[in-house]
Amino acid sequence: MTKQVALIIGAGDYLGSAIARRFANEGFHIVATRRRGDLETLKNQIESSGGAITTIHSDARDEQQVVQLIEKVETEIGPINVTVFNVGGNVRYGLTETTTQVYRKVWEMCALAGFLVGREVARKMLPRSKGTILFTGASASLRGSSGFAAFSGGKHALRALAQSMARELGPQGIHVAHVIVDGLIENDNTASLFPDMYASKGEDGVLQPDQLAEIYWQLHKQHKSTWTFEQDVRPFKEVW
Amino acid sequence: MTKQVALIIGAGDYLGSAIARRFANEGFHIVATRRRGDLETLKNQIESSGGAITTIHSDARDEQQVVQLIEKVETEIGPINVTVFNVGGNVRYGLTETTTQVYRKVWEMCALAGFLVGREVARKMLPRSKGTILFTGASASLRGSSGFAAFSGGKHALRALAQSMARELGPQGIHVAHVIVDGLIENDNTASLFPDMYASKGEDGVLQPDQLAEIYWQLHKQHKSTWTFEQDVRPFKEVW
Amino acid sequence: MTKQVALIIGAGDYLGSAIARRFANEGFHIVATRRRGDLETLKNQIESSGGAITTIHSDARDEQQVVQLIEKVETEIGPINVTVFNVGGNVRYGLTETTTQVYRKVWEMCALAGFLVGREVARKMLPRSKGTILFTGASASLRGSSGFAAFSGGKHALRALAQSMARELGPQGIHVAHVIVDGLIENDNTASLFPDMYASKGEDGVLQPDQLAEIYWQLHKQHKSTWTFEQDVRPFKEVW
Amino acid sequence: MTKQVALIIGAGDYLGSAIARRFANEGFHIVATRRRGDLETLKNQIESSGGAITTIHSDARDEQQVVQLIEKVETEIGPINVTVFNVGGNVRYGLTETTTQVYRKVWEMCALAGFLVGREVARKMLPRSKGTILFTGASASLRGSSGFAAFSGGKHALRALAQSMARELGPQGIHVAHVIVDGLIENDNTASLFPDMYASKGEDGVLQPDQLAEIYWQLHKQHKSTWTFEQDVRPFKEVW
Repeated sequence: MTKQVALIIGAGDYLGSAIARRFANEGFHIVATRRRGDLETLKNQIESSGGAITTIHSDARDEQQVVQLIEKVETEIGPINVTVFNVGGNVRYGLTETTTQVYRKVWEMCALAGFLVGREVARKMLPRSKGTILFTGASASLRGSSGFAAFSGGKHALRALAQSMARELGPQGIHVAHVIVDGLIENDNTASLFPDMYASKGEDGVLQPDQLAEIYWQLHKQHKSTWTFEQDVRPFKEVW
Repeated sequence: MTKQVALIIGAGDYLGSAIARRFANEGFHIVATRRRGDLETLKNQIESSGGAITTIHSDARDEQQVVQLIEKVETEIGPINVTVFNVGGNVRYGLTETTTQVYRKVWEMCALAGFLVGREVARKMLPRSKGTILFTGASASLRGSSGFAAFSGGKHALRALAQSMARELGPQGIHVAHVIVDGLIENDNTASLFPDMYASKGEDGVLQPDQLAEIYWQLHKQHKSTWTFEQDVRPFKEVW
Repeated sequence: MTKQVALIIGAGDYLGSAIARRFANEGFHIVATRRRGDLETLKNQIESSGGAITTIHSDARDEQQVVQLIEKVETEIGPINVTVFNVGGNVRYGLTETTTQVYRKVWEMCALAGFLVGREVARKMLPRSKGTILFTGASASLRGSSGFAAFSGGKHALRALAQSMARELGPQGIHVAHVIVDGLIENDNTASLFPDMYASKGEDGVLQPDQLAEIYWQLHKQHKSTWTFEQDVRPFKEVW
Repeated sequence: MTKQVALIIGAGDYLGSAIARRFANEGFHIVATRRRGDLETLKNQIESSGGAITTIHSDARDEQQVVQLIEKVETEIGPINVTVFNVGGNVRYGLTETTTQVYRKVWEMCALAGFLVGREVARKMLPRSKGTILFTGASASLRGSSGFAAFSGGKHALRALAQSMARELGPQGIHVAHVIVDGLIENDNTASLFPDMYASKGEDGVLQPDQLAEIYWQLHKQHKSTWTFEQDVRPFKEVW
């Protein structure tokens, strides 16, 4: 009777929303959060398809807000089965143009927020010996590049967190995985923001959010004897 | 009307057979090969479930046999949609105990055979701009260890092949992926060969072949805009 | 006449001091900093060998202090030729025992401080198209482990910074390198803190600080046509 | 009285010869081998500087020849202190243009030869608990790329060998290391073969063989408490 609960932290217009819809289609009660920005469109999409969703504006970088959010979900909605941490923070600045504020903020979005969410959700899942925690990575998770000191720093730290969690929590029954998303995600602005790149990619040359969401779903569905920690995902044409 | 064709090279009793059954369940005509050893059990399993399968004893290390095998499949059965290269070769010897014959043979099984199969299948798939080629890796694909000069050499070379193929063939429409299988695969002998390890793993502590086969199926099903090159898979309890 | 300047950030009792002595032996004017703790011993060692050293207590996590430190060195002592960033921060806590304060502090020590020092030194070196910046890493720079979410996060972020800097600054004539220090560094407490481990290692089984310092010196001496970005260093007996 | 012995396998005109000269300058008796090609120039260079060298044409892919070579060096010249394995094999072919003969030959040059040399030298060094074995890698050791199925396969396998040897032999007192050489090595033909690339690189934009040889020397000199397994080397301008 009671629906399983999927908590999507960073339910942005594209990937985050697509993941929410994917789990809603499987009968999960979705809790979708983002710091600010539209959550109504997603709510309408899911409810119009007969799904259940609770939307909350919450800042994942703030310990108090994260603790309260997870407490609230667990007590008011139900035990969290799946958490997807999908907060972004991609910026590009040359080293000497990177302000301390930017460097710190990108880390707070990528890594600190991931840590807070991961730790608080783990506290709830550990006594149940059950649950899935999925993190969104990027090619910058594996490689530092000119102009990406801040972003690759945040993403490397998030990957280290995910790997540490997988090694600690896996044997306790909690599946932690990290998806390396490599490439442009299709969105309303892709064509206008990167017209040349977009044109050069052609059909299926950019990541389709609904298809990407499928990866997250399959990771959650994996049997306990065959868990993936990490997989990369990119469009067929992507040069890597 | 015509079934799609999945060619399983190295259709061993456990993982190879499970992959064959998984694709047969989806309606593929299976071509299952191994150098020697039983293929009848697999044939009976698949046919008794209403599936179609052709079994062939063939040595994947032999260029002539590989060329003929693939020619035969393409002309007599149909265009190959999926190829899974699953030939093993795990041995453990200290460096000075590793004979030249062993070092060479392990490479021929892991890498040369993978190259021959990959190249010949690619020749058929390239004009069609379509197809999936999946390689089975191991933790030795990523790391050389004491006692594993031969096996890790073969598996590293196979991974280099898979990555080179993915980068060359991906933009031409062919999906190449590499699965890092980390851990013991459940089989009839697991309990007797590794009794302590097996007992210590407990339920779901060893890789279930049918669940592992699911990973290969999901990789094949990925949408062209979201292809994975590599993912690791291990039981939840595995220390890594 | 004028000595070259080597700035050692994190001039701890063992590795940091050994690096300072190594460069002092080559005639560099050493500027040795640490947040707090003894710098007098190092000062006496270097001065009694006829070397030149300035010691400064300074907090590398504090932007103002870093900016002032580097400004002061450049105007009062001379252009910085070499900077070694050697601030530690190794802690071990299970995920749910890791406080937000610890997680943040470890990142500030490992990564934020490295960023502030790297950026400010780069500002001075870039107009001169010359200089060396060396970062101290750890095995946690490459791998997240159970109990090391905080430390591996900080060290991964530092490595991403170093790699981003190497890629951006290398072609502009500045050599950035990252040393993966893997193993116990010999110190006054090694034997008492880790008696079993120490005894099991035997002679040369722990990293000798003066020998480790040699690696940093050789990196600095590398010719512009043959620069190393990364190398690992461990005792011969270390299991890895 | 007796000189130490350095055995250079693959003493080509550039890097191999430079390494031979570097160790000769330190008083080593050099044994320089290559399959075919000039060794007289190197012999003259070393002898005219007062060094000692024995040159031998020998095929490192042939077990018999390797066994006899090392036996001969040990009995006629002296115990081998250092071995450098520097056999190349860089070729570039699209997958379907790669013949089986090419794929096999590149592996034999890169990996089989490395295995034979490494194993035979280890047999001699192990009873002495002492010695250094250095392998030359490439960026293809870490990454498979379009057109490099054969070369990256051979180089990946060589790296797996080196890593397996380092883990097995290190604790027994033998230092095994792997140098990732990334970039064009300066040679008589660099300017004519790659005129645009060469011009674009400018001064110090290609690897200077004598400077690269210094890396090998420093690796050999490392103290037993601070051994490097792997380091990368590239010109300052190299894009990576």
